[in-house]
Parts: sequence; C-alpha cells; structure tokens
Amino acid sequence: MNRTWRKKVLPITLVSALAFGSLSWSGADRVSAKGNPNKEPEIKNVIFLIGDGMGVSYTSAYRYLKDNPGTKVAERTEFDKYLVGQQMTYPEDSAQNITDSASAATAMSAGVKTYNAAIAVDNDKSEVKTVLEAAKEKGKATGLVATSEITHATPASFGAHDENRKNMNSIADDYYNELIKGKHKIDVLLGGGKSNFVRPDVNLAKAFEKDGYSYVTDKNQMFKDKNEQVLGLFASEGLPKMIDRPSETPSLADMTSSAIQRLNKDKDGFFLMVEGSQVDWAGHDNDIVGAMSEMEDFEKAYKAAMEFAKKDKHTLVVATADHSTGGFSIGAKGIYNWYGEPIKAAKRTPDFMADAIVKGADVEKTLKQYINQNVVKLTDGEIKTVTEAAKSKNVTNVDNAIESIFDDRTNTAWTTGGHTGEDVPVYAYGPYKERFAGQVDNTDQAKIIFELLKK
Amino acid sequence: MNRTWRKKVLPITLVSALAFGSLSWSGADRVSAKGNPNKEPEIKNVIFLIGDGMGVSYTSAYRYLKDNPGTKVAERTEFDKYLVGQQMTYPEDSAQNITDSASAATAMSAGVKTYNAAIAVDNDKSEVKTVLEAAKEKGKATGLVATSEITHATPASFGAHDENRKNMNSIADDYYNELIKGKHKIDVLLGGGKSNFVRPDVNLAKAFEKDGYSYVTDKNQMFKDKNEQVLGLFASEGLPKMIDRPSETPSLADMTSSAIQRLNKDKDGFFLMVEGSQVDWAGHDNDIVGAMSEMEDFEKAYKAAMEFAKKDKHTLVVATADHSTGGFSIGAKGIYNWYGEPIKAAKRTPDFMADAIVKGADVEKTLKQYINQNVVKLTDGEIKTVTEAAKSKNVTNVDNAIESIFDDRTNTAWTTGGHTGEDVPVYAYGPYKERFAGQVDNTDQAKIIFELLKK
Repeated sequence: MNRTWRKKVLPITLVSALAFGSLSWSGADRVSAKGNPNKEPEIKNVIFLIGDGMGVSYTSAYRYLKDNPGTKVAERTEFDKYLVGQQMTYPEDSAQNITDSASAATAMSAGVKTYNAAIAVDNDKSEVKTVLEAAKEKGKATGLVATSEITHATPASFGAHDENRKNMNSIADDYYNELIKGKHKIDVLLGGGKSNFVRPDVNLAKAFEKDGYSYVTDKNQMFKDKNEQVLGLFASEGLPKMIDRPSETPSLADMTSSAIQRLNKDKDGFFLMVEGSQVDWAGHDNDIVGAMSEMEDFEKAYKAAMEFAKKDKHTLVVATADHSTGGFSIGAKGIYNWYGEPIKAAKRTPDFMADAIVKGADVEKTLKQYINQNVVKLTDGEIKTVTEAAKSKNVTNVDNAIESIFDDRTNTAWTTGGHTGEDVPVYAYGPYKERFAGQVDNTDQAKIIFELLKK
Repeated sequence: MNRTWRKKVLPITLVSALAFGSLSWSGADRVSAKGNPNKEPEIKNVIFLIGDGMGVSYTSAYRYLKDNPGTKVAERTEFDKYLVGQQMTYPEDSAQNITDSASAATAMSAGVKTYNAAIAVDNDKSEVKTVLEAAKEKGKATGLVATSEITHATPASFGAHDENRKNMNSIADDYYNELIKGKHKIDVLLGGGKSNFVRPDVNLAKAFEKDGYSYVTDKNQMFKDKNEQVLGLFASEGLPKMIDRPSETPSLADMTSSAIQRLNKDKDGFFLMVEGSQVDWAGHDNDIVGAMSEMEDFEKAYKAAMEFAKKDKHTLVVATADHSTGGFSIGAKGIYNWYGEPIKAAKRTPDFMADAIVKGADVEKTLKQYINQNVVKLTDGEIKTVTEAAKSKNVTNVDNAIESIFDDRTNTAWTTGGHTGEDVPVYAYGPYKERFAGQVDNTDQAKIIFELLKK
C-alpha cells in the first residue's frame, strides 16, 4: 500500500463486492420485489451524505434543539420526512461489533465488511472497488466533500485504498495517482487537509492544477471558480466547527452546493459523497455544543442536496451515519427534561473558549463573551470551576470544565470517548429510495448503489 | 378520578383524539395517499406490542447477544425484518421532552399528548377514549397482557383512566367498573398485580368470577382454562424476570398465546396490547443481564403474535417502545467491542443473586452457582468486591456490585437511572403496515388504529 505519488492506473484486479457477494435479504428483496419495471424512474445522480457519529440520540436531540418553544409540538428536522429505516454498523466480524469510521465507510462505499482502520481494502488488505470508482467507470463526474481533512477515513474510503486510515499522505497520493480510463477519478475535492497535499516532498495542489484542476482555499475563490474539476482545501487539517468558523471558510452546505454546481455539468450524471465529519469529533470530545453545531452544518448541507434533487427529479439522495459516538444520552441524573436553550446560547464551542483562555484571555470575560448571558446566566460556581481548571494551563482541562457546564444545564450525559454500537437512522429520497428501507446493513448501501449504477 | 369500585357506565363524554385532532402529516399522508381503495386487505385484529424502555441500543444489543459467534454476520432478530421506522416519544410539551410510560402509553392508546403520570387522561385531566375502548365499542374482544402489574402505567393507559399512574387500585377498579354497552371492556387480563385486585376492601378477582370470568394464578391453570374471559394474576406485584422465573409462572409468550387463543374466538376480531414491561425496569436498575432477559421474553411474545398473524392474514401487528431507559450504550471506556457472552453466562439476574446473598447465602458460592464459570471465570477481585458490598447487608449495594461485573465484562455503560429522549424503533406487519412507516409520532399509533377500526 506504500506508493510513490506518481500517477498510476487503477488496478483492474480490484475486488468488487458484487462479484462474489450476494445482496442480503434486505437489499435483495427490495430490488426484486418492489421494483416495477414499467415505472422505474430514470436515475442519473447519487448524493450520499454521511453524518459521522450521527446516531439516533443526535438526530433526536437536534430536533429538540430546533424546537420552537412557542408550540407544543416538536418541529421536524430536514431529515425527518425522509426516514426509511435503520442500518447495522458492525465491522468485519459481528463478534467485534463496534465500528470505526474507516471500516464503516468501506462497508458503505464498497459493500464489504472489513477491519477497523481499513480504507477500501478488505480483511486480507486487498483493494475493493468503491461506488465512486464504479460511477467514474460509467463516465459520471465524482466528488468528495467533508469538514475533516478530505483524506480522512470516511471520504478516503470512497476515493482511495490503504491498509490504514492514518496514512493520509498516501491517501492524498491515491487521489492524484489512481486513474480510471487515464483520468483522475475524483473531479471535485472540497474540505480540509491542506497539509496532506502541500508537503515538503510534493505539492499535489500544484500537480492537480497542472492537470487542469482549479485550486481554491477560501469561500470566495470557491464560489467564483466554475471549473468542473477543483481541489478546495480550506484548512491545514479539519475545518473549524460551524459556530467557530471565520467568514472566509465555507460551510458544508457551501461546499455541497459548489460541488453539485460543478458535477451537474456532466451530462452522464454524478456521484457525490458529503460528510458532516465533526459530529463525531464533538462526540469523542463529549461536547454537546460542538455536536449540535455540526448537526446544523450537516442538516444545511442535506437541505442543499435535497433542494437540488427535488428540482432535478433524477437524483437519489441517501443520508445516514456510520455509527454513534460518545454514548450521548438525552437526559441525565434521572431528570425527564433535556434543554436546548443553553446550547443555543453558546456563540463558540468550549474548545474555542478553552483555547483562548489557555492563551491568556480572562476566564470570566471569555465565558461571558461567548455564552449569551441573557439565556445562560453563569453562576459564580461555574466561573470558579473553569478558573480552577485554567490554573493547569491545560486546554483539555479547561475544555472539560466548560463542557460540564453545558452537560449540567442541558441534562446531557456521555458514557465513552469512543464509538457505540447501536443501529443508526437511514434517510432516502428520489428514484429507488424504497430499496434502502427497513432494517438494512451498512454494506447494503454500496450493494444497492452498485446495482443502480448498472441501469 | 376517585371512584368506588362499583360498576359504572363509561362516560359518553370521553374526549376522542379524532374528534378534534387531525392526523399529523406522517399518519395522514399515508392514510390518504398510500391506500388503494380497491386493494386494501381486510383487517380484523390488531396486536399492539410495547417493549417498555426498548430503545435502539436495546434492540441492537439484543441482536449482538443472539449472534452466532461461528458466523461473521449478525443474525437478525425476530423484529428486524419488520422495521418500518422510528417514533418520537416526547410527552405533552416538546419543551419538556422526556416521557414517562404513562404519558407515552396514553399517546399510543388515545392519540393524545399528555403530562407524565397521566393514565388515558389529557392535560386537563379529562378522560380520553382509547383504541381498546373503540375496539370494544365495535364489538371486538379485547385483552391486556404484561409482565408488570396489569394495572401498571402502560396497560392501564389502554384500559383505565386516572390522573395518576400510582393509583393502581383505582385502575383495577376501572377495569371492573367501566362498562361498554353494559359489559366489561377488557375480556382478557393477564399479568402481575394480584395485590391490586385481591385487597382488604374488595376482592375484584371474585367479582370478575361472579360475572363469568375465569380466575387463574399459574401457567397450568391458564393453559387448561379455555374461557373467553379471564383474569390471570401470576404475582403479587410484577412477575419475576424471565431468567428468574419459576416453572409455574407463565412467560410473556405463554400469556400472549393464551390471550390470542381466547380472543380469536370472537367472530368480530380483537384488539390485544402486550407489554414487555421489565426491559424498562432493568434499564432503571442499570442491569444489562435483566434487560437482555426481558428482551428475550419480549421477542418470544412478538414471535408468538407474528406466528398467529402470518396464518391469520387479517391481523395487524405493531411493535414499538415507549422510550429508552438508563442511557444504555453498547460500548464503554473507548473500547470498540461489546460482548454478549458474559450475559449468557448468567443463570439469574444480579437482583436475584443479591437477594440470596443478603438473606445469608455465601457470596462466592452464590456467584459461582448462578454465573457459568466455564464462560465467566470470576476473579478474586470480583468476588472480593461483592463480598465487601455484602457487609452492608444492603441489597442495592450487592446488586450494584454484581451488575458492575457484567458492565465491565461486556463494555456496557449507563448515564442515568431514568428515561432518555431519543426516538425508538417501530415494527409493523400485516394489513396497513405501511401507514406506520417513516418518522412518526407516538400519537400516530392510536390515530391510525382508530381509523383502521372504522373499516
């Protein structure tokens, strides 16, 4: 899996999930039983959105966060209307049943269960073909959009092959080197991770530009540029979280819209994967403010995709999660209320505030600057706890102290800094949406899309 | 709401959900858009099953528990194939968003959002008509089955009306006193709660017998008796958990089968509510062994209902949960494995073992008697922790110490002793199952069933 960064032709020995795997009952039943051959709509584009870590606690909490307190009903999120079921998330062996993002994304991109950390390789480390690659082979335009490094586990599993997700430089090399029919296989790459492309050993941004791609590094550049092929890198590593983002950084919805505009110029249609990467990162951090910030960012990207699909009428939109994170629960301490208001009072994430404090900013001033005091009037005790933590000059300590304020005020609780193994929601819209319905497996996502790409 | 136990006619002023409430989009769309008037199947019976506390972590964990370690795939549970979506669970006001079992059951029985603790009364404490009552008005046979007291919050919200779930004696009175067309409204009552019926002030069991009901108190009696009307009370309060149950106590599946046999004699069809009551109780106790015991008990009851429905072809079977409990997560401590084997090694619940220990049984002997040492070889440290806890002579302390062994060995974690607010799965089979699909609200359950009862 160690490669030079030189261009190479994608090996034709790629293992295809469909070559040896049969559709599971969930997928197969739908494909054979529910389709009406006389009435099947034409499918041209597929937009596949992944809320990393977006388990059912997150989608439900986000609904309560958006709730209009002036009404007694819970207003629906953009996702709700399109719920079709749930998917199982376990990796290669159901006896080791909690997945990481690489294994889960490989399941969804290639239809293959594999070990945690695997980037589109199977359990024997053989490369497996992804739906993005199959779409490119069919002549479609392709794109990857994420708020993490664009070489991070989830996007990587659609556009690269590596035995370990940690090899983000090699993954960037794959994006440049692996060709399909002599051409780069990903037309639109938008996200973070500049440091994986512009490196001491090579400048892949320059190399892409030489091959006709635009290279953009802020929102204005991205929207001004109309090139069908683009590399957009908006941060050295991951993008700031939505509520911490400076105005020059595009949102996930901005990147999604820009990607769709470019990809939609291809008369053969397109495949686009969009990841809300940092719902998961906030979950690992047990940060409810960050998690809800990233849910909103992801919801807006979903809305942008749906608005396109509703007009286009030949676009399948599937949204789901790879797993849940943090053991987040709506409710704690036996109390039967979870409050969204304190979260809405936060103008920045606890990480952002902690960073400022450790860099020397006054604790009380910083907290009161970034937490709306008309909504959450901080107590002396709360300020004192953060002040105590700040004495350690340790960002994590300060971050944890601020997060605790929000946990206490919202009745949020967590069980782990890792992932959890429960099923996650699946949303689908557009042609063939019914094939994703019911209790499916994460591998069914790729298996069904492979089949639809044959149409 | 305080009543004598004398018979009374059900007030005709009952507020009906459908009288003033319109179907939400989720229900309404399905009723109007998806129904094909020429092809609608005949619906005769409705079996509504509630896994109390059975959130998505429970249904997913139970799948891993049942997993055959000899295969790499996760074998499906009886529920999986029939997943149609999820439901929201919040009570009367979405700003106070974590429900109790009474409010959730009232939503599902009457289609009305109400306050926590309300038993089929609305927020103004007016009685609201339930689907069980509507079925009886249509001349159908009706039944309630539960492993809690049969007067507990969930069954009570289908068959009684009270401003507070705590009034279990009054609820038993309602079962006897509230008549529809001059007759008792519930034909089959099977569960626990003898102490609410056979009391110093009144013997409702005798009263029911006088009116033609059979009264049974163990499994043999229940299966021998063929009367269409029966009161079966198998414990003073709740039934023992499945793995603690003596052979004379019926399982939830036994009671479900017995109920169906009786109710199916009515040519007009029947409505039956079945509750797996103690998934929730184990969740409150943060007891993973008890929770999985009760999941199995509930799954077997579901299977019994499904076997009947598949043969009958005119029976709608809906299964769901009222909420999730305990903030249970599959995974803890950042570890990406959750193990079912230690749970299968338990022959009794931690409560059962703790009770024996506090009553004087030897700690090590008791633990080794009830935990299969070939699967979970207890360490000296584990035995020591329980021994230390036993010195307090406090059942809860001992129970908690034993539960910790299972949490540690399985990588199970919990956040609360109360409920949590995330959406819960919905399963449906039979005529009109598609109306329950997608993202629905708990009130939709009753609204749809009310409408189907008009057919």
